Amino acid sequence: MKTLKIIKIGGNIIDNKKTLSDFLIKFSKLDDPKLLVHGGGKLATKLANQMGVEVKMTSGRRITDTDTLDITTMVYAGKINKNIVAQLQANNCNAVGFSGADGNTIVSVKRPVKDVDFGFVGDVIKVNTQVLQLLVNNNISPVFCALTHDKNGQLFNTNADTIASELAIGFAKDYEVELYYCFDKNGVLQDVVDDDSVILNINTTTYKELIEQGTIADGMLPKLNNCFHALENNVSKVCVGKQDMLFQSDSKFTTIEK
Amino acid sequence: MKTLKIIKIGGNIIDNKKTLSDFLIKFSKLDDPKLLVHGGGKLATKLANQMGVEVKMTSGRRITDTDTLDITTMVYAGKINKNIVAQLQANNCNAVGFSGADGNTIVSVKRPVKDVDFGFVGDVIKVNTQVLQLLVNNNISPVFCALTHDKNGQLFNTNADTIASELAIGFAKDYEVELYYCFDKNGVLQDVVDDDSVILNINTTTYKELIEQGTIADGMLPKLNNCFHALENNVSKVCVGKQDMLFQSDSKFTTIEK
Repeated sequence: MKTLKIIKIGGNIIDNKKTLSDFLIKFSKLDDPKLLVHGGGKLATKLANQMGVEVKMTSGRRITDTDTLDITTMVYAGKINKNIVAQLQANNCNAVGFSGADGNTIVSVKRPVKDVDFGFVGDVIKVNTQVLQLLVNNNISPVFCALTHDKNGQLFNTNADTIASELAIGFAKDYEVELYYCFDKNGVLQDVVDDDSVILNINTTTYKELIEQGTIADGMLPKLNNCFHALENNVSKVCVGKQDMLFQSDSKFTTIEK
Repeated sequence: MKTLKIIKIGGNIIDNKKTLSDFLIKFSKLDDPKLLVHGGGKLATKLANQMGVEVKMTSGRRITDTDTLDITTMVYAGKINKNIVAQLQANNCNAVGFSGADGNTIVSVKRPVKDVDFGFVGDVIKVNTQVLQLLVNNNISPVFCALTHDKNGQLFNTNADTIASELAIGFAKDYEVELYYCFDKNGVLQDVVDDDSVILNINTTTYKELIEQGTIADGMLPKLNNCFHALENNVSKVCVGKQDMLFQSDSKFTTIEK
């Protein structure tokens, strides 16, 4: 089976012009077939402020109302996605931007209302990789923003980490998929304030222990749940760390295995 | 050769939710392979006003500065493009949104400064249809917004009529291309205030006569120049009129031939 690298980048790369540019130059040189997923960074909040659109929160969590969905669609699928694609082209990496609506690639349903109505937030129910495989097999890298659709004309905000893991699972029947989550730390840390305390390997058993010890908590929990969800669905390998893990053989990062 | 319909729609369709929705339902039912090009309508100006970004004009023509390019990228490639794609998916028409940067499909250069510096406005120099043909041959409709790139990482605003004609020319070596410009009139009119006075056929000879008579002037001139440019470069047929021309056999519209 061919290898496919699925790489997710977030705000720490997107929000810094130079960091993003450096990352895209290196990404372009990766030999294997590759797919990029990007989050939104701080630009959506900045645009909301400029437009005078209030950021609505309930129980500390952001609500995606109609205006907010418009803003994220404009920022994620428009400004960020097209500028990334244009930069990749400049680096001779042929790329095509995608939302989950394009090619009907990621279908979701509105997140069910329990305590909180999150508004236009979608939970993924189906991934179709046919169109993406057409491109990947022709040496073209899909570039995904964090939007999905419900196949009834409605767009949804969807977590970029989830998009990356669901795409990885979708490709896993035809490719040996390696999933890379780039973020602002060297990996999962034993001591959250010591960036050198990287836990190099985590498996199902040690994962449970790390949760019980309280080493893995807060934002790392959903991130690692995404990782194990991918591994349980035939994704070969999941790595978490700084973007160096992709480009430097001596870099330290966390590899997650079943 | 297979037939490909390239259809350009503008503000009179995009700016009205119901008109756009009706159009997309009918577009989805067209049998031939098809590609949609959309303009930006009034949304970009509305967003600029909301953001407090001044619309800059010189000699009555709009200048695309950095802020304006950001706005058009967000509105054209984000909000309008993704909502059109999502609606097409709801109508079981598989579609993928494109700017000229995606797939390196439309390369342009900054419009040379003569009397006016138009800013980030690109004149098309090259069209690559390989990626688009992959999709079209798999029954997927590309949906283009009016943005191009210079292959050095810079996006440009480019006239949507021009994008439609340049794509038509790019496809003409492999397809029998029919190019349709949908706008708010029944076609080229003998009498500009009488929508029933459609000139059914125009060719190179009658075109010159109509210009000399003053029948074709103002905004119609660049539109028809685009049409003849396409015909002179192997596009089979160019039609101008209301969207009915695509769906109703008894509708009147203007067909332009060499």
